[in-house]
Amino acid sequence: MSQNAFQDYYPDHWSHCYGCGRLNEQGLQIKSYWEGDETVAAFHPKPYHTAVPGYVYGGLIASLIDCHATGTAAAAAYRAEGRAMDTEPPRRYVTASLHVDYLRPTPIDALLELRAQVKAIKGRKVVVAVTLSAREQVCARGEVVAVQITDDFAAGSD
Amino acid sequence: MSQNAFQDYYPDHWSHCYGCGRLNEQGLQIKSYWEGDETVAAFHPKPYHTAVPGYVYGGLIASLIDCHATGTAAAAAYRAEGRAMDTEPPRRYVTASLHVDYLRPTPIDALLELRAQVKAIKGRKVVVAVTLSAREQVCARGEVVAVQITDDFAAGSD
Repeated sequence: MSQNAFQDYYPDHWSHCYGCGRLNEQGLQIKSYWEGDETVAAFHPKPYHTAVPGYVYGGLIASLIDCHATGTAAAAAYRAEGRAMDTEPPRRYVTASLHVDYLRPTPIDALLELRAQVKAIKGRKVVVAVTLSAREQVCARGEVVAVQITDDFAAGSD
Repeated sequence: MSQNAFQDYYPDHWSHCYGCGRLNEQGLQIKSYWEGDETVAAFHPKPYHTAVPGYVYGGLIASLIDCHATGTAAAAAYRAEGRAMDTEPPRRYVTASLHVDYLRPTPIDALLELRAQVKAIKGRKVVVAVTLSAREQVCARGEVVAVQITDDFAAGSD
């Protein structure tokens, strides 16, 4: 895909996240995009992301929902400010709270599709609702409260 | 420690979880123990478990809380039945829902300490409250609803 993902716009010092940092070589490196008013991401689980054989462990699902939601929060902040993600100042969000309902076992041999909607923007907080689907069945639903971090957070520590 | 962890009693076909399976060589292999009426586990994050440099990413915290809680649910079920974890039939729980409040950034260079309490046992469900601390400060609080899986769940698929 030639379109840049939200995470491709994170400044280097905010690009080390295990879930979504483009500079974390061991990480999941998820990539999130707009699709109309929703955001989407896709992920292929590795064979070792097991819960019980054949199914994905809940921590991976929580991680994907978390990072797709914080990426969505950042993208929504730029949109609300009417500017592109390659403009200054950068926006980056961390998680204040995460809730996941596991609706059915998530198959490990399927492409996992994440889809998110922004529920509210309240000052520095963005509330994001996420579904995680496999083979067109919703396997988990999540809600994340993301909080904007300050421009210099961790900027000097890497 | 010579005492067996809860996860050491899981049958082989339920021991592949990335978070807590003793047979998952790439996994986190967390180990949970009773300490009075609470349960405890400890985990050293790896350098790549980054959120922003210096701090642990939220997905790892969610994973640790999740697996420590399902282990606690299993141990509590044996206790409620008045029998040891090496007796039949085996008990194993998966996650119905997970909630995590991230209270402060979690340092990546500290030992993370998990502590859980069983809030309720209702039929096949166990509700578990978990704290995750570093350097004696609570960094995250979680609540997990765990559900007992049937004895043959995934037994034939590995």
